[in-house]
Amino acid sequence: MSQKGTINVAVENIFPLIKKFLYSDHEIFLRELVSNATDATLKLQHLARIGEASVELGDQKIEIKIDKEAKTLHIIDQGLGMSEDEVQKYINEVAFSGAEEFLEKYKDTAKDSGIIGHFGLGFYSAFMVADQVEIITKSFRGDGAVHWTCDGSPNYTLEPATKEDFGTEIILHISDDETEFLEESRITELLNKYNKFMPVPIKFGMRTETLEKPEGAAEEDAAPTEEVDNIINNPSPAWTKQPSELEEADYKGFYRELYPTQFEEPLFNIHLNVDYPFNLTGILYFPKMTQDLNVQKDRIQLYQNQVYVTDNVEGIVPEFLTMLRGVIDSPDIPLNVSRSYLQADGAVKKISSYITRKVADKLKSLFNDDRKGFEEKWNDIKIVIEYGMLSEEKFFDKADKFALYPTVDGSYYLWDELVEKIKDAQTDKDGKTVILYTSNKETQHSYVAAATERGYEVLLLDSPIISHLMQKLEGSKENVSFVRVDADHVDNLIKKDEEQISKLSDEEKESLQKVITDTIKDAEYTVQVEAMSSDAAPFIITQPEFMRRMKEMQASGGGGMMGFGNMPDMHNLVVNGNHDLVQTIFNEKDEAKKTGLIQQAVDLAKLSQGLLKGEKLTEFVNRSYGLIK
Amino acid sequence: MSQKGTINVAVENIFPLIKKFLYSDHEIFLRELVSNATDATLKLQHLARIGEASVELGDQKIEIKIDKEAKTLHIIDQGLGMSEDEVQKYINEVAFSGAEEFLEKYKDTAKDSGIIGHFGLGFYSAFMVADQVEIITKSFRGDGAVHWTCDGSPNYTLEPATKEDFGTEIILHISDDETEFLEESRITELLNKYNKFMPVPIKFGMRTETLEKPEGAAEEDAAPTEEVDNIINNPSPAWTKQPSELEEADYKGFYRELYPTQFEEPLFNIHLNVDYPFNLTGILYFPKMTQDLNVQKDRIQLYQNQVYVTDNVEGIVPEFLTMLRGVIDSPDIPLNVSRSYLQADGAVKKISSYITRKVADKLKSLFNDDRKGFEEKWNDIKIVIEYGMLSEEKFFDKADKFALYPTVDGSYYLWDELVEKIKDAQTDKDGKTVILYTSNKETQHSYVAAATERGYEVLLLDSPIISHLMQKLEGSKENVSFVRVDADHVDNLIKKDEEQISKLSDEEKESLQKVITDTIKDAEYTVQVEAMSSDAAPFIITQPEFMRRMKEMQASGGGGMMGFGNMPDMHNLVVNGNHDLVQTIFNEKDEAKKTGLIQQAVDLAKLSQGLLKGEKLTEFVNRSYGLIK
Repeated sequence: MSQKGTINVAVENIFPLIKKFLYSDHEIFLRELVSNATDATLKLQHLARIGEASVELGDQKIEIKIDKEAKTLHIIDQGLGMSEDEVQKYINEVAFSGAEEFLEKYKDTAKDSGIIGHFGLGFYSAFMVADQVEIITKSFRGDGAVHWTCDGSPNYTLEPATKEDFGTEIILHISDDETEFLEESRITELLNKYNKFMPVPIKFGMRTETLEKPEGAAEEDAAPTEEVDNIINNPSPAWTKQPSELEEADYKGFYRELYPTQFEEPLFNIHLNVDYPFNLTGILYFPKMTQDLNVQKDRIQLYQNQVYVTDNVEGIVPEFLTMLRGVIDSPDIPLNVSRSYLQADGAVKKISSYITRKVADKLKSLFNDDRKGFEEKWNDIKIVIEYGMLSEEKFFDKADKFALYPTVDGSYYLWDELVEKIKDAQTDKDGKTVILYTSNKETQHSYVAAATERGYEVLLLDSPIISHLMQKLEGSKENVSFVRVDADHVDNLIKKDEEQISKLSDEEKESLQKVITDTIKDAEYTVQVEAMSSDAAPFIITQPEFMRRMKEMQASGGGGMMGFGNMPDMHNLVVNGNHDLVQTIFNEKDEAKKTGLIQQAVDLAKLSQGLLKGEKLTEFVNRSYGLIK
Repeated sequence: MSQKGTINVAVENIFPLIKKFLYSDHEIFLRELVSNATDATLKLQHLARIGEASVELGDQKIEIKIDKEAKTLHIIDQGLGMSEDEVQKYINEVAFSGAEEFLEKYKDTAKDSGIIGHFGLGFYSAFMVADQVEIITKSFRGDGAVHWTCDGSPNYTLEPATKEDFGTEIILHISDDETEFLEESRITELLNKYNKFMPVPIKFGMRTETLEKPEGAAEEDAAPTEEVDNIINNPSPAWTKQPSELEEADYKGFYRELYPTQFEEPLFNIHLNVDYPFNLTGILYFPKMTQDLNVQKDRIQLYQNQVYVTDNVEGIVPEFLTMLRGVIDSPDIPLNVSRSYLQADGAVKKISSYITRKVADKLKSLFNDDRKGFEEKWNDIKIVIEYGMLSEEKFFDKADKFALYPTVDGSYYLWDELVEKIKDAQTDKDGKTVILYTSNKETQHSYVAAATERGYEVLLLDSPIISHLMQKLEGSKENVSFVRVDADHVDNLIKKDEEQISKLSDEEKESLQKVITDTIKDAEYTVQVEAMSSDAAPFIITQPEFMRRMKEMQASGGGGMMGFGNMPDMHNLVVNGNHDLVQTIFNEKDEAKKTGLIQQAVDLAKLSQGLLKGEKLTEFVNRSYGLIK
């Protein structure tokens, strides 16, 4: 008693859904209708090219018109047009895609025609914003024109019409809820967003152009003007061309087209161009990083066949490159799917790793071609590169050829150069090469000065994620460790086998240590009396590398050891037992004087580390004004 | 020759679209199928309640099962079930909504039944993830069970089946691309995301529960355990109840349910509950603000009839409240529309301003009921309130009743209290009340100390947007101005008619000014010699209010005067001509000594303002070590 059958779709059920809920954004109706008009135009051009249409094409364009009085919006093309039969087939049958049929029929020749080819539903999105939609269309084959009208009920009428030229005019009677789409500014905004780089010229209104004065015109004559079509799009944007056709100026010009409000020029660009195993073109720009909070508005834009889709490229472009700007155009990227699907999709994974590879290759060649220029840009691009090294293993491997390690005095080394340069002076007694760095030349100045005086190279590493990168480098390179210049006093930063002779005996050291500890009464500071060279500072505050880095890593998110973020700051107060001032303090018999000396000296050490603040600083300043007099 | 007709939809065209492109996220198929199962259960409960179904209901639940071997996912309910005719009507006809029909038929009694009522398309989303879908269903009316099978072609078979109980089982044969949906962890994740608060219990697997030991059991006996259904949802979440039914602990408990990974308890909550002119329930929480960068993951969640929709509430909740957490549930919020539409929509505007009003009322009553508690929370909530005052005029007007102005010594004033308190001491000679503030008690300590010694109240205003709020308050309140404590020396912060007698003549001042200017050689500092009280500091660095605030406003985005952001920092070096040290400097004849005195004094003034850094600081510290000895 088993029955078989076919699931049925009733138009009165499905039509309201298509009208209201198919697209999440009402505004995309215009993108859809202009895409249809573009396809109609490109198809006719293709047929003319292969000899299947014998018509005069001229300068074909698409025109958008608003009629405020009639409350209508018009989309007019000079493309294929439709006969009565074609209206029946393509319009009166929902979801029958003419583009797909065309591509199937002409698959040998039309592959690169640029036809957009949607699912055959785009036209009906008109009903999201219009109470009534009219089509006046005439086929290029010369049949009579027809006039189709539908109020979305879904009943239509179809009657003969008069129309001079072939092509199609769509007339939307904008509904009362959607009158924004009768505003010139709103339509301009939409055309700019979705259609700015579509392949057929789009006319929206007229504009006045100033002509050159005719020869012999008098000075005081105004230059003549002319009304010309206002074409809102650039049908051949830079990314559709071959890199060999483009100069540096063309890339910069296209950047300004994309982001008209960006003052800064981009640092450099990467032209993407591949058609196997997937189709992808595009241009990525490294922007100059600024503090401007609005920067994130200008993001990488995703197109499909020159139609704008979104500026959310999450999952398609590797995360570390989402700080870049530019355009990606690929018909092969699935759009209407979830992020987890995108991440698992093989094609998308290939696109993402292709982009990573291209970026690494470009960085390498930029470095090789103009090292000095690359060094000058380093500060602007380092965050992208460092983030890439952290997040993409393949990029990390390639980065040795272009990632730079700058020193405080303005030299830039590749990794191998750096290790070669420092390994003699900066290898400790256990054979480990110690890379010294500062996160801030200003606030760690006295420590930097002590290390450079000793002949050490000090790197300036100040990116927010640098502690994570150091951790990774220590793990993947052999026998290196990173140590910040204030992690210990200069004699101990790189432990050698030499020993300083101490002017104080171990008992004396212990007693001094106790006196100082009792005087400062601060559990945050661990006092250590050490034998250092007598020209080193008398008091130094240090912060051991490991704990500090773990705290930093946790603060900058993801990584570091849990719980370290909440640990209090711990400092060592290193006292140089060999320094004259310390000897003076040690030998001072007057208790009050001794305490005063220690306080002033410890305050100065705190100042060097930026630790003297608030009331303590005010007291120090007042006390010091007294000392001047 | 005009023809009329109806637009036609062919199932073979539309079905692939429904299957593949209707929803942007494949994962929502589970939400849709569980919603259908919920509706079937609620409908049966409703019919039983009104006497139209005479069945034993028991503890109805929905069960989700994975069969990894068969690669199937099962959704089983104990609801209405369907007869053969009903399968024909509701399944074999796409987009015929049973829920809508039911609500129409029972509109008098079923209004509050919680039926979700979608567009009748949800079921077909199953084909996004399944090659084949089966339905085994038996109507509660007792007709024979039927078994429907469809491979999405869209051909189906329908045959009799055996099934004990009424209700419906959906069996999805998960396709090879979508095997993630056969993973327990993935299904748990989805159920947690979309169905955590749906109104019918949902069972997914079993879990072991420890029972109490029977009386008299020996110590060493293990407590007995029992396998029980693992119910993943809470069918009656707090927001569906009346505020009068809930205790403080219930609100806190619900917060933990919503955000299981949040350690911190919320500060307080606001229960939303309105059914005219729109339907909205929900609970908003003020969280304790932390530095944690992951905070933004836990956002306000939007539900419709207890089904999770999104955590993007942009446009629905006023922007200043998007930092809050919690839940909003409203069937009246249009979802599938653009942001610009949302912003223009009257209902949504009303929702947004209702929420603003409720939040303002709650803040006022919290303040009135427990001022001390409110003051303690101020630091955590101020950013929300200050941002609201800036962005919503109505909120600004109401905020006088609860917005607090804290002083450096821990008092909190309402606006009117503040003005009343300070107006005698802090009104200047032009009748303007000057509100003194600091942005940082630590770094501006010496300035704060000078002002409080003078008997002035100093506010501690340290929010990033506070300069914008001060600007707004100065514009809307009468005769007040905000001045930071380091904007001038303390005698000049609030200009009175008193004048200090100067120990230096005008000529002497001028000559001293010249000497100091020549010594420091720094265009950033403008030297002013003034007559101040002799116990004020000898040298003070100040930064005029107007320019500094404009720069801050521009740095924090939107506002301030354009171009100020790029101006260099400008400081005044105020020299107290009446101070002993300055007299000493003025009278010093030894040029080298004079220079040394000035340098050390100016460095100390810079230290107080945090302006001595890097090499200059290191030099100062080394020089000062020398001065100790």
